[in-house]
Amino acid sequence: MDEKVLSIDKTTLEMLDKAKKDGVKTAWDRKAELKAACGFGAAGVCCRNCNLGPCRVSPVPGKGVERGICGADAGVIVSRNFARMVAGGAAAHSDHGRSIALELYHTSPDGDIKVKDEKKLMKVAKRFNVPTEGRDIYDIAHDVAQAGLNDFGRQMGEVNFPPTLPKKRKEIWDNLGITPRGFDREVVSIMHSTHIGCMADAEPMIKMALRCGLADGWMGSYMATEFSDIMFGTPKSIDTEANLGVLGGNSVNIVLHGHEPSLSEMIVQAAEEPEMIALAKEQGADGINLCGMCCTANEATMRHGIKLAGNFMQQELAVVTGAVEALVVDVQCIFPALAKLSESYHTKFITTSPKAYIKGSVRMEMDEEHPLQTAREIVKAAIMNFKNRDKSKVMIPELKSEAIVGYSTEEILNKLDGVVNSQIGPMQTTKPLGDVIVAGVLRGAAGVVGCNNPKVQHDFGHIETIKGLIKNDIIVVVTGCAAQAAAKAGLLKKEARELAGPGLKKVCELVDIPPVLHMGSCVDISRILELVGSVANQLGTDISDLPVVGVAPEWMSEKAVSIGCYVVASGIDTWLGVVPPVTGSPEVVDILTNKMEDWLGAKFFIQPDPHKAVDEIVNRINEKRKKLGI
Amino acid sequence: MDEKVLSIDKTTLEMLDKAKKDGVKTAWDRKAELKAACGFGAAGVCCRNCNLGPCRVSPVPGKGVERGICGADAGVIVSRNFARMVAGGAAAHSDHGRSIALELYHTSPDGDIKVKDEKKLMKVAKRFNVPTEGRDIYDIAHDVAQAGLNDFGRQMGEVNFPPTLPKKRKEIWDNLGITPRGFDREVVSIMHSTHIGCMADAEPMIKMALRCGLADGWMGSYMATEFSDIMFGTPKSIDTEANLGVLGGNSVNIVLHGHEPSLSEMIVQAAEEPEMIALAKEQGADGINLCGMCCTANEATMRHGIKLAGNFMQQELAVVTGAVEALVVDVQCIFPALAKLSESYHTKFITTSPKAYIKGSVRMEMDEEHPLQTAREIVKAAIMNFKNRDKSKVMIPELKSEAIVGYSTEEILNKLDGVVNSQIGPMQTTKPLGDVIVAGVLRGAAGVVGCNNPKVQHDFGHIETIKGLIKNDIIVVVTGCAAQAAAKAGLLKKEARELAGPGLKKVCELVDIPPVLHMGSCVDISRILELVGSVANQLGTDISDLPVVGVAPEWMSEKAVSIGCYVVASGIDTWLGVVPPVTGSPEVVDILTNKMEDWLGAKFFIQPDPHKAVDEIVNRINEKRKKLGI
Repeated sequence: MDEKVLSIDKTTLEMLDKAKKDGVKTAWDRKAELKAACGFGAAGVCCRNCNLGPCRVSPVPGKGVERGICGADAGVIVSRNFARMVAGGAAAHSDHGRSIALELYHTSPDGDIKVKDEKKLMKVAKRFNVPTEGRDIYDIAHDVAQAGLNDFGRQMGEVNFPPTLPKKRKEIWDNLGITPRGFDREVVSIMHSTHIGCMADAEPMIKMALRCGLADGWMGSYMATEFSDIMFGTPKSIDTEANLGVLGGNSVNIVLHGHEPSLSEMIVQAAEEPEMIALAKEQGADGINLCGMCCTANEATMRHGIKLAGNFMQQELAVVTGAVEALVVDVQCIFPALAKLSESYHTKFITTSPKAYIKGSVRMEMDEEHPLQTAREIVKAAIMNFKNRDKSKVMIPELKSEAIVGYSTEEILNKLDGVVNSQIGPMQTTKPLGDVIVAGVLRGAAGVVGCNNPKVQHDFGHIETIKGLIKNDIIVVVTGCAAQAAAKAGLLKKEARELAGPGLKKVCELVDIPPVLHMGSCVDISRILELVGSVANQLGTDISDLPVVGVAPEWMSEKAVSIGCYVVASGIDTWLGVVPPVTGSPEVVDILTNKMEDWLGAKFFIQPDPHKAVDEIVNRINEKRKKLGI
Repeated sequence: MDEKVLSIDKTTLEMLDKAKKDGVKTAWDRKAELKAACGFGAAGVCCRNCNLGPCRVSPVPGKGVERGICGADAGVIVSRNFARMVAGGAAAHSDHGRSIALELYHTSPDGDIKVKDEKKLMKVAKRFNVPTEGRDIYDIAHDVAQAGLNDFGRQMGEVNFPPTLPKKRKEIWDNLGITPRGFDREVVSIMHSTHIGCMADAEPMIKMALRCGLADGWMGSYMATEFSDIMFGTPKSIDTEANLGVLGGNSVNIVLHGHEPSLSEMIVQAAEEPEMIALAKEQGADGINLCGMCCTANEATMRHGIKLAGNFMQQELAVVTGAVEALVVDVQCIFPALAKLSESYHTKFITTSPKAYIKGSVRMEMDEEHPLQTAREIVKAAIMNFKNRDKSKVMIPELKSEAIVGYSTEEILNKLDGVVNSQIGPMQTTKPLGDVIVAGVLRGAAGVVGCNNPKVQHDFGHIETIKGLIKNDIIVVVTGCAAQAAAKAGLLKKEARELAGPGLKKVCELVDIPPVLHMGSCVDISRILELVGSVANQLGTDISDLPVVGVAPEWMSEKAVSIGCYVVASGIDTWLGVVPPVTGSPEVVDILTNKMEDWLGAKFFIQPDPHKAVDEIVNRINEKRKKLGI
């Protein structure tokens, strides 16, 4: 196997080489061992939703068996499977949002988790119509949390939408019948309608999936971001470094991996305590080095500048360095393989969430009432494991890149405000952003988001897409594993503006930002919704009129499918670099890549070649600009 | 293909023969065309929960590929798939419960749906702590509905359990961490924890599945039954007939198929209106003949004596008679194949629910505010279709059986009360039932429930199991497709007591009941929970101590998996006649069929041979009796 085709990231290739020498396996090895994936599953035509089968119909229309035992055809099976993917992804995001809401509900002045950003609390209170005048901030916080929780459990009416949602967009949803009612209910509705003998029509099935996705984007994920900001602070731009080279040669390395920010916030706090640093030194280490992996990395780096060890496909490689004392995880995107892998090194693989037990891990469940105490125990366990590091097995790659992270919507407004300030005084508005887009200084904007997937070369899709877009004066915002890919490739540095087209370069110089803005974790795609919604409102138009796109070059998770649904349903064309399991139904493919445009003014594009994707995006954005008359 | 092996039901075989002559296909044909089912799917080792794969690991431990790309092994994959089945099944039941709760919330004295059973309303109000003294019944109904809806959306604390749940049982759940929190949340939790990179440990995964199942049984389904009784009446014993022979030769035949009782209640009402009957006669028919299929049949027969046309595997055969003017459906267990099949006859296949569109059907969606109006339009459409009946295509089987149905818990208590009355005066208690079990007149009780599945001979498992049990003095209660099988086989007649053992026969004579009691639809398994919970409370013990069992000889749906989970978690041993997709993980098989007994005092038995199952049940019940010292 020519490993060079596996990744464009040098540290990844170095560590894969070391893994081979160490005799341990990674996801790439397991993928090779599996050989060909099941063609029925890959085409979406395998149905296991009851025990009559399993049934699999022909993925080629007109050839072979066309119906399952109940009579479901490819359109029915593919659309149901698609909807269940959305239900799984939306559930993951929003169950994370629920945990954050419950934490906000339980904040107290003397608790481990406090209200950190009162300004954001006031902003969010306003949108939930929670009174603030003369009230204790914790009373306000509890009422805001309760209002959010009510939307999770809502049984009548519809959820509270933020004011950034344009009215025209909401009307489109209402007319299509895809306005979310209550978050949990949307997931349950899909699970019901995909049960044997229910929904057997692709169009209404996909509409249900869109409704569930919207509940994720504009409610569950949106709230996860808002409430996290209230408790842990709204991110501001901050310097950091990225790639496996951030691991310390003589530090206690703790890698935080997963998704919910509470775990990492507590560990950041614990690791900064002088007693802990002293203990680390006592054990012969220079200190404690916290690093992040996947979305936990994004959450922690946005708020604290915590270094980014890598993205999804590098999670095993961190362990392979032999220099990680503890790999601490909560939920989502965590390889069960880490348990066995960490046995080959000294790494303690620590699971903490009741939502995700992993067999073979060290179990240190977060104490809900005293999470900081659990965090201290975890940090201590890592420190005391330093002495077990086997130096003969250690190899830390040299490569790491500088990056600026922390571009919340508020921070982007702050930056714009600085520019505006110098001209017309303070105003905190997206107007300058709208202006430069209307003026054509920027051609448009793109959100490049999503996972890694070994079906494609690691990071290649992310980097080629981003480079192509900025070269064409399309400003790029990134979240998730795409954000880490960009950080590792040096695209989050201000100097990267040299790779941008002349318009974008000018804007970057004026506002003093990189051409690629790190906006956070996957749930923080809500920040992107907030930003585009604000720009649309400011221009008095709908999101679908704006020259903005979404791209997920290397997606793999059900969350990404949910994201795709809410991004498209929000009016933003979305490019997928990995083919989703829908090709067995021409009807479903047509709905996703064609008919949706009639419904929503946006649709999916499936394009595995990032260079072709960039061309398509530029064309599409040019068309939108033409329609807008700009 | 020797059709005799397909069913023990003569009308089914007759109609399969006619289908062949008519050149139309049924589920049995589609099953034959599919050839072998996928071995990976059948063993539960196929994972499609993300887009890294699909992955399939070896169903044979120690042979072949043991891990998917993320590192999930058979235990992880099988337990996740199992949990998602439970989530799908629980969602179906409880989303049905939610609709019923919303209907109760919207009842009004001048609405189409009213409060019919005030006594039941008061009983349910009490358990939800809703005040009743001096209040308008509709105010009470709205508060009861709201309390129920709150449990669907609950985000903190735990759901309201009925007083029939024994305290000891609740303690077991609390200790295991499987007490349901809020219904919708349990489904979402499973969807989250089965997402890539979350739960990777079979035991906690199965516990989550149990928790979700319990939310179905003791909350969603329980409420569906209670609230339906409030609006449509608590069933009382009533005579009916069963099998395809109930179709009328010169009547407008309307077959009601699906699950939620509201649709059928409205149609029953509309079909009784003199204008409708007159219209039918105008069209040359003798009248309107309403019949039921699947659980809608059970709901409608329990309350109105509506005839049972057949069970799950007969839904297509009803159309094949050529004598059905309209097949009217709402949700669950409806073959999408009915759309194409009905094109070959004159039957109008009418879908009504926003939860279940079926391509090719006639769409007549129930108007939420004026459901009776929609029902009238449906009945009229059926009547006007009578003239299109092609007599050359009509063949109605002669066979039908008499049956008594309608044994709600209240009706069983009424019957027992009649006996007690004659001895010691009125008392409305399960005491006599407990007494005859303690005395050994009855050896025990069994609930025989669930679907049909063409993997086994149609109705054979149901009938052989029931006959074997009653012969051994085990009283049988039935719901779902098992109930219809029993009705068709004549086991719901009082005369069937001749097939019972001497103890059961004596009890049947004394109380004047059949040896097999029809307790309703699949959600009405809550009636069985209510009954066994009451008996356990009355004997001062836990449900798991009682000599009672559950059997699902021919199950096929995800709902059945959810039911299995809550029945076992309630302390009742459960026999499955069809192998669930778990055999690829010895660990999961061990949890279900062994370890669960330590957790819950009950477990699953997988036994495809009904005669062997009866032997196992008798042994197990004898053991339980011995332990109880009776």
